[in-house]
Amino acid sequence: MPAQPTGPTPTRIAFLGPEGTFTEAALHSLGTPSEGGSVPAASVPAALAMARSGEVDAAFVPLENSVEGSVSPTVDGLAAGAPLVITREAFLEVDFVLGVRPGTGAVRRVASHPHALAQTRGWVAAHLPDAEVVPAASTADAARLVAAGELDGAICPELAAHRYGLEVAATRLADTPGAVTRFVQVERPGQLPAPTGADRTTVTCLVADRTGALLDLLTEFASRGISLTRLDSRPTRERLGVYSFSVDVEGHVADARVGDALLALHRLCDEVRFQGSYPRADGRSTAPVPHRVHDAAFRDAATWLDGLRRGTAG
Amino acid sequence: MPAQPTGPTPTRIAFLGPEGTFTEAALHSLGTPSEGGSVPAASVPAALAMARSGEVDAAFVPLENSVEGSVSPTVDGLAAGAPLVITREAFLEVDFVLGVRPGTGAVRRVASHPHALAQTRGWVAAHLPDAEVVPAASTADAARLVAAGELDGAICPELAAHRYGLEVAATRLADTPGAVTRFVQVERPGQLPAPTGADRTTVTCLVADRTGALLDLLTEFASRGISLTRLDSRPTRERLGVYSFSVDVEGHVADARVGDALLALHRLCDEVRFQGSYPRADGRSTAPVPHRVHDAAFRDAATWLDGLRRGTAG
Amino acid sequence: MPAQPTGPTPTRIAFLGPEGTFTEAALHSLGTPSEGGSVPAASVPAALAMARSGEVDAAFVPLENSVEGSVSPTVDGLAAGAPLVITREAFLEVDFVLGVRPGTGAVRRVASHPHALAQTRGWVAAHLPDAEVVPAASTADAARLVAAGELDGAICPELAAHRYGLEVAATRLADTPGAVTRFVQVERPGQLPAPTGADRTTVTCLVADRTGALLDLLTEFASRGISLTRLDSRPTRERLGVYSFSVDVEGHVADARVGDALLALHRLCDEVRFQGSYPRADGRSTAPVPHRVHDAAFRDAATWLDGLRRGTAG
Amino acid sequence: MPAQPTGPTPTRIAFLGPEGTFTEAALHSLGTPSEGGSVPAASVPAALAMARSGEVDAAFVPLENSVEGSVSPTVDGLAAGAPLVITREAFLEVDFVLGVRPGTGAVRRVASHPHALAQTRGWVAAHLPDAEVVPAASTADAARLVAAGELDGAICPELAAHRYGLEVAATRLADTPGAVTRFVQVERPGQLPAPTGADRTTVTCLVADRTGALLDLLTEFASRGISLTRLDSRPTRERLGVYSFSVDVEGHVADARVGDALLALHRLCDEVRFQGSYPRADGRSTAPVPHRVHDAAFRDAATWLDGLRRGTAG
Repeated sequence: MPAQPTGPTPTRIAFLGPEGTFTEAALHSLGTPSEGGSVPAASVPAALAMARSGEVDAAFVPLENSVEGSVSPTVDGLAAGAPLVITREAFLEVDFVLGVRPGTGAVRRVASHPHALAQTRGWVAAHLPDAEVVPAASTADAARLVAAGELDGAICPELAAHRYGLEVAATRLADTPGAVTRFVQVERPGQLPAPTGADRTTVTCLVADRTGALLDLLTEFASRGISLTRLDSRPTRERLGVYSFSVDVEGHVADARVGDALLALHRLCDEVRFQGSYPRADGRSTAPVPHRVHDAAFRDAATWLDGLRRGTAG
Repeated sequence: MPAQPTGPTPTRIAFLGPEGTFTEAALHSLGTPSEGGSVPAASVPAALAMARSGEVDAAFVPLENSVEGSVSPTVDGLAAGAPLVITREAFLEVDFVLGVRPGTGAVRRVASHPHALAQTRGWVAAHLPDAEVVPAASTADAARLVAAGELDGAICPELAAHRYGLEVAATRLADTPGAVTRFVQVERPGQLPAPTGADRTTVTCLVADRTGALLDLLTEFASRGISLTRLDSRPTRERLGVYSFSVDVEGHVADARVGDALLALHRLCDEVRFQGSYPRADGRSTAPVPHRVHDAAFRDAATWLDGLRRGTAG
Repeated sequence: MPAQPTGPTPTRIAFLGPEGTFTEAALHSLGTPSEGGSVPAASVPAALAMARSGEVDAAFVPLENSVEGSVSPTVDGLAAGAPLVITREAFLEVDFVLGVRPGTGAVRRVASHPHALAQTRGWVAAHLPDAEVVPAASTADAARLVAAGELDGAICPELAAHRYGLEVAATRLADTPGAVTRFVQVERPGQLPAPTGADRTTVTCLVADRTGALLDLLTEFASRGISLTRLDSRPTRERLGVYSFSVDVEGHVADARVGDALLALHRLCDEVRFQGSYPRADGRSTAPVPHRVHDAAFRDAATWLDGLRRGTAG
Repeated sequence: MPAQPTGPTPTRIAFLGPEGTFTEAALHSLGTPSEGGSVPAASVPAALAMARSGEVDAAFVPLENSVEGSVSPTVDGLAAGAPLVITREAFLEVDFVLGVRPGTGAVRRVASHPHALAQTRGWVAAHLPDAEVVPAASTADAARLVAAGELDGAICPELAAHRYGLEVAATRLADTPGAVTRFVQVERPGQLPAPTGADRTTVTCLVADRTGALLDLLTEFASRGISLTRLDSRPTRERLGVYSFSVDVEGHVADARVGDALLALHRLCDEVRFQGSYPRADGRSTAPVPHRVHDAAFRDAATWLDGLRRGTAG
């Protein structure tokens, strides 16, 4: 039951590309990948598929954003298909720079992904009121087009500017600063990351009756002193009248209270998919665990019950 | 975990005496004890003490009455002191007869225990309006006094009348008919009675905060589909601010759902005392057990969790 | 909604007699009744019947005992029949004295009610090992018999000894000291006692499904920050499969949170019987009431909802 | 308390533009707007701002999508700023067509919004394997560019194709068919839509402690027999450690059970924002309402409590 230490870091990781995205920047924040160790994927489903097929050892994708909430392709992509489990997470503050070719004077045509354009509309109106605004396939592609001389400026991650040899002409372009995106590394099931005392466990449950089931499910966590750190609730795509809850909770599946709660979910829900136990990386302190749900309390209770059943205690 | 079949019926049982009480009648309803097999005790605490000391193999005492509720000396006597567990139960309809010496004409002086006098006041007023009513130490003692010629009539169990050679002059004297008393046989912990599919488990919990604790405790039973058949709640005698809940639930400690609920109580409560799992004898059908809490559902969940923790499943 | 102050104290009160009982002593503890103001009743049902018929203004009866739990004739007597509500409560420590005629030497025959004999068995064995022990119809009747010269000693309340001119030869005879009995004064519904800030409300609920209903009922109290101070749960006498919960909670029906909880019980239960709101007399401090369930929070919410429904706020 | 009938339909409605979007198509599905009655807005926040300022009578925006979940700009835009309430909803199946200029032969360059490109990637790979794929600012803008002769094909709503005089060369391009988007019309608070018996109520709650608060909040709905039809839970943007729950429930604020639940939320939560009661338009039947929470049950309980407080009933 005690989880073994994790094995060596996977050597090939597919990330949500193209090169220069926030996802790649978040991946780098965990340490520089070896030469050829990180591979851009065209989409979240593509990255997950590469991890499932074994083409890569892991996929690295965004899971939730402090402004937009859950990233649906990731939540949905993990909920269906062959099992993948989260083994690491990373948090990255998402902000934009204006990348230009060295020596650029006036920025007449500026490009970015429509999402990024929406989040920097105020800055553009204030600082580039006369520029033509052009949509691009991704923030990194905007940088590529600037480098190629087709446009004057790209609203993109700092990494993308560096990647394409652009100069950073302005920083902190987001109209609402402070947005943080959470990224996760997922792998085929194997050795679990060892418990660290500040872990997170992700699980997705399918249930038929939403209101009552959610109440029951939350009760199972609350009665074991387990705090939720994310809750995503919505209809399933394929099965009419079946709801899906994706939750993150504090603790590791190797902790008695978390394991015991998962047992209850397994009995309660139509289907439960375990999606990993891994060290939390948000730097927040984990809520203190009441003594009554420490591992020792579970062990004591089990010893006591064993005695009762053998008739040696009353 | 499967409980072994119970051993031979204990050969010496102390019952709440004296001879001829309802308790003795209930004990006989379970089968005729062997010669010298049943021993009257002066009180419930005395009967329990005899069982604890090993002077007898078991004690047989009233636990609850459909009119009066829990029998406090039994509930309290089981909650404190060396452990005793219930191994059998019996139900007896409690009603009274008028016992007289054969050939008695007018009944001028009638006696009984004050409780019995209170429960037959209407009958006495209607049928013996002019009789002097005299208190006795027990209903059986009233019968003894009649047999000794000191009184004319005893309001007593039919068994007491027979025991003292009295004639039954009238039956069904209780003003409110239909009262049923539940009796239990308790023994020092040993082999548990085997599960029969229609069992009852008795447990007493001590907690410090009453309202919240009871809610938590009931939630643990409800979330596992376990019905309560008795609930007794009151302050403890000795510990200020500590409350005691004595409950009977459907099921056997060998059933996964009952064992799992007891584990939760052990973690939740200041103290839990297991007081036996035994076949129910009230002839009522046990509430159907939902599939999600069958033993198989617990086994499946445990196998699943074991796989998760070993990293072989997602 | 604010309750009016209570009217004058009732002038005639029936108490559980005979004269000299603990009930009469508890009644005196609330102030000396006027001449002819207190009337002994033969039983709890008799006292309640006198209050219902208007023969007296109120009945004064025991409701619960710290050792024995609820007093069934009172709980049952209030749950059925014409409504009566509690208007006052009193607590009395229950202990016994040995009453003898002045000048008595050896105590050869000692009497009491069988209950009192059971609670003083240890003292009698230690101090009167050779005395003949005789049952009496009540502790007060034992005192009467001693005064009449038929016996040597009575185990009775101090009040009974005084009432019959006996001398107190020994005090604190109870084997387990500290037992406290709670008594209540009940009247036909009329003006409620005014809220004092430290009140208690008594209510009895009938429900068909015990386990779930109790959970729902406790949830209604807990979600409004209301603590229970007594809970009595058992099958009803007359209606098969219907359970009765009798509870005391902190607070007054005029308090918004208590009134709101009663509304929920009225919707939830097959039947709810309100049995009074009255000042608590146990000298314990009432649990602090969270701000979110103060009267002001209810008023603010009502004003807000009213605005929503009229379409003037969002 | 009974809501008055709604006034005349607003004459000017801002919708999430540009012209030809799914939002405009959904708005048309509710009836043809009068000349100049519908005004495209550049973004969801812009549409909401126009409604708040009074520049238009209402805004019409997407709220949730069966594939992507909640539409964050709408959920967030309604949760902050001056109150707006939902007065109507509409559901639209979201699918794409290929729009071309009449007479077009080979489609060499095809454009759409990157989201739409992602949802039709499979179709494009199968049917236009050699086409260059170009991002556009919106699906409607892609149609405009095709009409202007700058591109050969637009992946867009059918309405956009019609609007720009394009021919529909292919339909049902979505790789996952059946996605449905729910749109809502929001207005400044005023007369509420009258209850129809099949209504929905939207409310957003801010709370400080997520796990416990959500449990309490769901309990308030469940105990009143109210079903949730949407639940969105996430951290608030501006207030650290404060969580926001946006829920849709069955029923109308004029219904006693819904009003009573809102009262409880108002007491429980740091802040509650009512966001409208309106007829549901999904054609699903509303869950049957248990008798115990019908308006009549609330009325009966209120009458009963009123009697208790006046002292006229027990």
